[in-house]
Amino acid sequence: MELVFIRHGLSEWNQLNLFTGWHDVNLAEKGVEEAKEAGRKLKAAGFEFDIAFTSVLKRAIKTCNFVLEESDQLFVPQVKSWRLNERHYGGLQGLNKKEAAEEHGEEQVHIWRRSYDVLPPLQDRNDPNSAHNDRRYAHLPHDVIPDGENLKVTLERVLPFWEDQIAPAILAGKRVLVAAHGNSLRALAKHIEGISDEDIMDLEIPTGQPLVYTLDENLKVVSKRYL
Amino acid sequence: MELVFIRHGLSEWNQLNLFTGWHDVNLAEKGVEEAKEAGRKLKAAGFEFDIAFTSVLKRAIKTCNFVLEESDQLFVPQVKSWRLNERHYGGLQGLNKKEAAEEHGEEQVHIWRRSYDVLPPLQDRNDPNSAHNDRRYAHLPHDVIPDGENLKVTLERVLPFWEDQIAPAILAGKRVLVAAHGNSLRALAKHIEGISDEDIMDLEIPTGQPLVYTLDENLKVVSKRYL
Repeated sequence: MELVFIRHGLSEWNQLNLFTGWHDVNLAEKGVEEAKEAGRKLKAAGFEFDIAFTSVLKRAIKTCNFVLEESDQLFVPQVKSWRLNERHYGGLQGLNKKEAAEEHGEEQVHIWRRSYDVLPPLQDRNDPNSAHNDRRYAHLPHDVIPDGENLKVTLERVLPFWEDQIAPAILAGKRVLVAAHGNSLRALAKHIEGISDEDIMDLEIPTGQPLVYTLDENLKVVSKRYL
Repeated sequence: MELVFIRHGLSEWNQLNLFTGWHDVNLAEKGVEEAKEAGRKLKAAGFEFDIAFTSVLKRAIKTCNFVLEESDQLFVPQVKSWRLNERHYGGLQGLNKKEAAEEHGEEQVHIWRRSYDVLPPLQDRNDPNSAHNDRRYAHLPHDVIPDGENLKVTLERVLPFWEDQIAPAILAGKRVLVAAHGNSLRALAKHIEGISDEDIMDLEIPTGQPLVYTLDENLKVVSKRYL
């Protein structure tokens, strides 16, 4: 059984070196090109999908759409879920990474970015940009909507989606594409590759590179390769 | 209750004056612009959707995606179904409309295009372009896959999707977008507007113009307007 991950291409806020998280920024032109190129690579390698999963953030959805379009399979069913969203970066969202370092200290920012279980400063729920004020999350109880996450918490909210949607699709013989984000994919990778809390933050999944996993019957990773 | 239809923008085969049907052609540049403009109009008018339905043909899917993107709601769930496909034009698919008139006679082609219940010549199932050889329809029994349709048959296969998916969504209070094709939308319009077999072929839904219906509790049309 194979499973393909694709991390969205470069976004406008990646370019500006801002903490993005759940902020719904667009792909940069380069990110669009990365996504299309990924689609062409998958097509050249003969990849066909039966279902595609993505987040509710446009940079992932558009990456998914470009990949499907360029590989001539835009008809593939697509499921969008908040559970595949990027790690919520809390009060850091919208801050420049350099400015954050000046304000909070280099070391503190490094800890927020690189520790598995330290939470960032939380975002105020009254912030107009808070997910609590966004209709795409209006079906969720407020205590389910995060105000800031570490990777541990990200994994905890991604995992039910893996268990209830992605894993059953794979076990039913479907060929699955997951188009998501650096940290939601990292969380899934931790789970299926069995990576420790200590090592997981060193795993970098590059943008726009299809990552192909071969899985065993327990959906644990047998091998992985980038296309 | 409101319901919005959008017919896909101009396609590459519309431009060439070819019978298209289920052939999966792309939007022309002008069609992309039409779709984006429709999205902007819907946004300006404050339309929000809870679910979008489209076909498994890329000209409709892309129209749907452009509309959702331009109206800042790409996160809206999207359901793609073969039942919303364009009328299958049988053996006429790929033929130039002028050439078809020369080959079969002006009057015959007019009958195929404009009669409610006369079937076009059927497409050979061994044709490499036949839906019978296309994996997106591989989940269907062969006798369900059409080889050529009139509007009557188109309506018969669209109707179950209306009954099982679109109507229940509207009755559940969801705000629905349907991005589809000239004849699948015409079939739906016939049903909800109560248009006769004789009059329906005169109904032309223009490309890229959001058509807004107000419905009563039986999902019959109370009023309609183009944005």
